[in-house]
Amino acid sequence: MSRPTLASLASELAVSRQTISNVLNAPHRVKPATRERVQAAIAAAGYRPSAAARQLRTQRSMNLGMRLLPATDGINGAILDRFLHALTEAAQSAGYRLTLFCAESDEEEIRQYEQLLDVAGLDGFILTSSTPDDARTRWLHARGTAFAVFGRPWDSAGQPVAADHPWVDVDGAAGTEGSVKMLLAQGHTRIGFLGWHTGSPVGNDRRLGWKRAMSAAGYGQDLVTLNVEAEDTVAGGAAGTAVLASRGATAMVCSSDSLALGAMGQLRESRPGAFLRGGGPAGPDGQAAVVGFDDTPVAAALGLSSVAQPVEEAARHVIRVLTHELDGSGASLLSRGEGPERQLLLAPRVVERIPLPLAAP
Amino acid sequence: MSRPTLASLASELAVSRQTISNVLNAPHRVKPATRERVQAAIAAAGYRPSAAARQLRTQRSMNLGMRLLPATDGINGAILDRFLHALTEAAQSAGYRLTLFCAESDEEEIRQYEQLLDVAGLDGFILTSSTPDDARTRWLHARGTAFAVFGRPWDSAGQPVAADHPWVDVDGAAGTEGSVKMLLAQGHTRIGFLGWHTGSPVGNDRRLGWKRAMSAAGYGQDLVTLNVEAEDTVAGGAAGTAVLASRGATAMVCSSDSLALGAMGQLRESRPGAFLRGGGPAGPDGQAAVVGFDDTPVAAALGLSSVAQPVEEAARHVIRVLTHELDGSGASLLSRGEGPERQLLLAPRVVERIPLPLAAP
Repeated sequence: MSRPTLASLASELAVSRQTISNVLNAPHRVKPATRERVQAAIAAAGYRPSAAARQLRTQRSMNLGMRLLPATDGINGAILDRFLHALTEAAQSAGYRLTLFCAESDEEEIRQYEQLLDVAGLDGFILTSSTPDDARTRWLHARGTAFAVFGRPWDSAGQPVAADHPWVDVDGAAGTEGSVKMLLAQGHTRIGFLGWHTGSPVGNDRRLGWKRAMSAAGYGQDLVTLNVEAEDTVAGGAAGTAVLASRGATAMVCSSDSLALGAMGQLRESRPGAFLRGGGPAGPDGQAAVVGFDDTPVAAALGLSSVAQPVEEAARHVIRVLTHELDGSGASLLSRGEGPERQLLLAPRVVERIPLPLAAP
Repeated sequence: MSRPTLASLASELAVSRQTISNVLNAPHRVKPATRERVQAAIAAAGYRPSAAARQLRTQRSMNLGMRLLPATDGINGAILDRFLHALTEAAQSAGYRLTLFCAESDEEEIRQYEQLLDVAGLDGFILTSSTPDDARTRWLHARGTAFAVFGRPWDSAGQPVAADHPWVDVDGAAGTEGSVKMLLAQGHTRIGFLGWHTGSPVGNDRRLGWKRAMSAAGYGQDLVTLNVEAEDTVAGGAAGTAVLASRGATAMVCSSDSLALGAMGQLRESRPGAFLRGGGPAGPDGQAAVVGFDDTPVAAALGLSSVAQPVEEAARHVIRVLTHELDGSGASLLSRGEGPERQLLLAPRVVERIPLPLAAP
């Protein structure tokens, strides 16, 4: 059976194309009996208007905006790049294009929103992070602009807070909790946490999972000394690991792969053989262990265990929920009122790897 | 002195704002004497119309399109991500936004061009690669659409060819030539080349630089045995290196950091101590040496020497030359006829690093 079109549906139902368009976009204009008949036929036929037809009809730009954050060291930046690729593909499948812009601050991002709405007629925005007491989401909400956020809302104290807008996030605490459980299963008990020195809700959330798992396993007594904060770089990871090792940690759960890479290098360098032959700060099987976060290409290349975020799934859901907002009542009729979850917390996955024997004993 | 505006210029010259606009956008409509007087004042005052004013006046979308290539392994993909960031920033500084789209093939990319021009009214396109006998540049040229390419044009045999359109590229052969010279200076003479197994003009160009430098130094006799091709992955690099090492190579120039990372791991694993203590396939100072290409974050993190492409400079020049095409005669009046170079080959730089002693002897 060929795909139904507006014309074939109109012909089948003996109504005008305008009537079908009205049922989709302005149902109040259509007599209830006709509306129900058309809605039933639409649902039965699985008709979806084409992107081009929809654009002409709705006068929308079919264009979504997103601020491109400054390039980071490339290790941690890899995750946002994967998000961008998946987002572009998902948007395009839904008939939307993606417009990128830069901003130096959240305030400038808001000025860009204003200009992109007024001058370029963008339909909505994707935010790739959420800041405490976020002025951007407040502004978009007040203006009545559709948007969706990759990141949960936080209050001004950095605690999770309820909000009305659509968001998708990954449960960071569940990720570090999983890392600790993996290390406990390997026999480690002195498991340190190597986090970011700049406090952030995302960083706090990752620390929380470590604390939770350590306490649940009965190792809650040393959480203060085993918690170290460092600059989010390879050098920062090495420095923080030196401190943790001096406090007897045999394993480290890190907030990022940059930190984990530094940890790995520091352990190998400062305690020759610790990693592969035992001795030094080593766990039960003679190995110190490091787990990163974000499962970047560096982690995969070096055999570093890391927490993998389902970034592509998050991107697809962001587009799903945002286009649902934009399509409004027409789309919800098509899907019989069942929209995508407006707020979704995805579970990450710990990828366990054996470090590459870059130098044999 | 405050920045001149259209209004202040009009007042100073005692002409209407429309006259100044005509001088910029439709000079044939203005009497020669007036035109020359306005042009001189514009040049003297350094007046540049604001982006918003220009958009209203020219009815352009101020929107440039670019195909986002599929995410690669993240090691080699890092360079295109840096390009994208720099491009977005440069475009925005010039008053343009960047619209991303996906395509599975060059043919689909052309269909996207057509739709983006007709439906979204895009002003021009950026191409991030150049394929032999490129159908996309032919299409854009025939349609009269402004575009600029990151990548030289190649003929159907993959040889450099002259073309009319603007492009920016990095001289890959100069990069591998520089790598060979660095290794020769370290005392290596049996320097292998580890390239991509899928033939490509870019890959051939990188091989060419190695050949040129080896021949010039009088080591041209073994170029056939010291040239190995592999899949562009870490595993491919390890496999290719095993072959090169068996042929007595003490150093490897690689077409990518993925290959170089595999080479580094293979050398360390198969010949314990070769890297740091001498023995095995080792150069004059007791070390085997590997040079990558693209200077990715992985190379920086691991102390891997690599060829750095001036990607940000390339992105800025792409925008410079493309906006110059778009601004046409108005802009060239402002810059007194001196436009940016329409075709520019940038020199890369070899970054020499000492490998991190991930495991001490």
